[in-house]
Amino acid sequence: MKNVAVLGYGVVGSGTVELFEKNRESISEKIGRDCDVKYIVDLRDFPGDPFEDRIIKDFNKVLEDDEIEVVAEVIGGLKPAYEFTKAALEKGKSVVTSNKELVAEKGAELLKIAHEHNVNYLFEASVGGGIPIIRPLNKCLAGNKIEQISGILNGTTNFILSKMIKDQMDFGTALRLAQELGYAEHDPTADVEGHDACRKICILGSLAYGKHIYPEKVHRSGISHITLEDVAYAENAGYAIKLIGSVKPAEDGKVSAIVSPRLVPKSNMLSSVDGVYNAIYVTGDGVGDVLFYGKGAGKLPTASAVVGDIIDCLKHKERSIMISWNDCTDDDYVVKYKTVENSMYVRIQADNADELKPAISELFGKLTYIERAGRPDNELAFITPTMVEGVIDEKLEQLSHSADIKSKIRLL
Amino acid sequence: MKNVAVLGYGVVGSGTVELFEKNRESISEKIGRDCDVKYIVDLRDFPGDPFEDRIIKDFNKVLEDDEIEVVAEVIGGLKPAYEFTKAALEKGKSVVTSNKELVAEKGAELLKIAHEHNVNYLFEASVGGGIPIIRPLNKCLAGNKIEQISGILNGTTNFILSKMIKDQMDFGTALRLAQELGYAEHDPTADVEGHDACRKICILGSLAYGKHIYPEKVHRSGISHITLEDVAYAENAGYAIKLIGSVKPAEDGKVSAIVSPRLVPKSNMLSSVDGVYNAIYVTGDGVGDVLFYGKGAGKLPTASAVVGDIIDCLKHKERSIMISWNDCTDDDYVVKYKTVENSMYVRIQADNADELKPAISELFGKLTYIERAGRPDNELAFITPTMVEGVIDEKLEQLSHSADIKSKIRLL
Repeated sequence: MKNVAVLGYGVVGSGTVELFEKNRESISEKIGRDCDVKYIVDLRDFPGDPFEDRIIKDFNKVLEDDEIEVVAEVIGGLKPAYEFTKAALEKGKSVVTSNKELVAEKGAELLKIAHEHNVNYLFEASVGGGIPIIRPLNKCLAGNKIEQISGILNGTTNFILSKMIKDQMDFGTALRLAQELGYAEHDPTADVEGHDACRKICILGSLAYGKHIYPEKVHRSGISHITLEDVAYAENAGYAIKLIGSVKPAEDGKVSAIVSPRLVPKSNMLSSVDGVYNAIYVTGDGVGDVLFYGKGAGKLPTASAVVGDIIDCLKHKERSIMISWNDCTDDDYVVKYKTVENSMYVRIQADNADELKPAISELFGKLTYIERAGRPDNELAFITPTMVEGVIDEKLEQLSHSADIKSKIRLL
Repeated sequence: MKNVAVLGYGVVGSGTVELFEKNRESISEKIGRDCDVKYIVDLRDFPGDPFEDRIIKDFNKVLEDDEIEVVAEVIGGLKPAYEFTKAALEKGKSVVTSNKELVAEKGAELLKIAHEHNVNYLFEASVGGGIPIIRPLNKCLAGNKIEQISGILNGTTNFILSKMIKDQMDFGTALRLAQELGYAEHDPTADVEGHDACRKICILGSLAYGKHIYPEKVHRSGISHITLEDVAYAENAGYAIKLIGSVKPAEDGKVSAIVSPRLVPKSNMLSSVDGVYNAIYVTGDGVGDVLFYGKGAGKLPTASAVVGDIIDCLKHKERSIMISWNDCTDDDYVVKYKTVENSMYVRIQADNADELKPAISELFGKLTYIERAGRPDNELAFITPTMVEGVIDEKLEQLSHSADIKSKIRLL
């Protein structure tokens, strides 16, 4: 049976076709029947491509072909992925995707459409690349109340931070290297400013807590303002700076979700996740902490997750696998980040900065000053006690009358 | 609906009931209908237990009750677990289990019976306690050829080795501490000699490669012979000693599987897995390396996996989830460990041991001598090149004419 169509023949699309064809025999055995990729839909031409004869430009051909059971949407972005996905589901075809933007924006709606048509919408590849996380969270840990999900969800920023930490490369240089190596895009905003990580933590939080978390409701800060001075202070105090997405339940059935750089203690395994790797901690009331680690992006790792989902759809023809969450109309479902407690690393500049210590201690109570080799007289860094973030900001506002606040980074 | 029965009210059984009851409301939501534990089967009395009214002694009552859809077998051991499991499956009830001994011995047969009766036999809890590994391997990574599975599969031995490495406790003292803390049993053989890890790697290998791997076919060595001298040499050379189970494909459709202590390089994340934690690397041709990490045993972590499987069965009533592997009648399916290539750490004793270096170098070619603080004159340690293990043993046999071979430990 030629029952699979792949939408988008870019990096992930070509990886998906490559891996599927390579392991097709064993995949057919697992499904218990024959399977193959019939169409690859892309507007571009690919002369000389080994699968050239399967490449078509018109998606309607997929929709109208009853042999197609599963559509792998690996176009990315909202348009035309959203329309294509909806149309395929409504035609009774399952859809699998690596498209985190679409799942984060339209997941609740598309899952509902899938259920109504007794097909599946699966998105293992949308978070953590090839790392199994969606299915483990939805199935294996289903007996738990999820107390927190927290992790390194973006390989590009982790590569840049690793280079800053290990090789004392500054942010700009590390970013350019990431671009040269193909880890960062020409416009790196989505990665560097935390949009990508934000979409992923929204997907995980929606799944874990049953209500759609929209990315625009989640406070997000990126890594472009982090300097080698911050890295040195953190290192010296036993921390590594990592871009962390996290989500956990808050009072009254709400959730707290945030994406930001954090000082991660060296004792935490997340601190030793280097390069383009991702790692995600899930804490459950039964299981305690479990960690999932692997390559969070890339052609074949992402294809691995897409193909795994294709197989699951082919195995469960005409059975809905029951992944779902509800839409969320409550504007206050995600609590304001300023009301959440955190401990904060702060770096300030002022003439004879050490003379400010009594005033700082008076503001924050018991805090920890940290050092770095060659700290100049006009610089000071400290870690605040754990307090409501809005209160920390008020105190820093007061401090800003006598010093420049150069950096503030949350602790994990 | 009171549709669940729990067989065995020991540590895992009571954890299963506790977690299920605690999260029953959210579990019912996930399933889309009501559910509850109706029977707990145990021959012992539990006066005053909060679930005393559900405890029965006669398993037949479960078999004959049509309301029961899922049986959680957490008795452990082969008898009567095997008979009970078989009878339940034949009655059309799904069975979930934490019983690695039973799955490793009878998995192929019980999975076949489950399929014939259109029910499920799930065993996420049998490997890695609460760590999701069975379902990720079977589903999420289904698009990959699995190139290797390798990990720390036993928390007790990892606790003992961690104490030896971090606190310079000798094996006997660390074992007694593990027993005092309840991590090791009064008779620690199954853990310490690697039987438990062996069962787990057999389950993972059976699932990954589709044929039953029987524990008695797998070469296994434990940790009781490891000394603080070995730990010191390893540490000094940049390794941590860990008990590792591993399985990978060999030539002609066979597999190579082994459980033994190994010198793990500090750069490998397995080296930093301490205490009772487990961690499992899976390498796929698409995904590369992924790591699963968490508490590998204990009441609630194991219960987390059992309850996850119960939920999956209740969701998929009268649908077989298609986990399976074939029985294996080929006596040579697991290749002889002596034919596999390894690099080996060796510690010897001899008068003026350094004088043996020329002879040792002649035997092995280019090898690496390693040191420890206070190495006595009559001791020498080295790491062999990678060679077929049988050949290493022949050379060590020759060396044994002029020195005592005190330790040999494989490298990872």
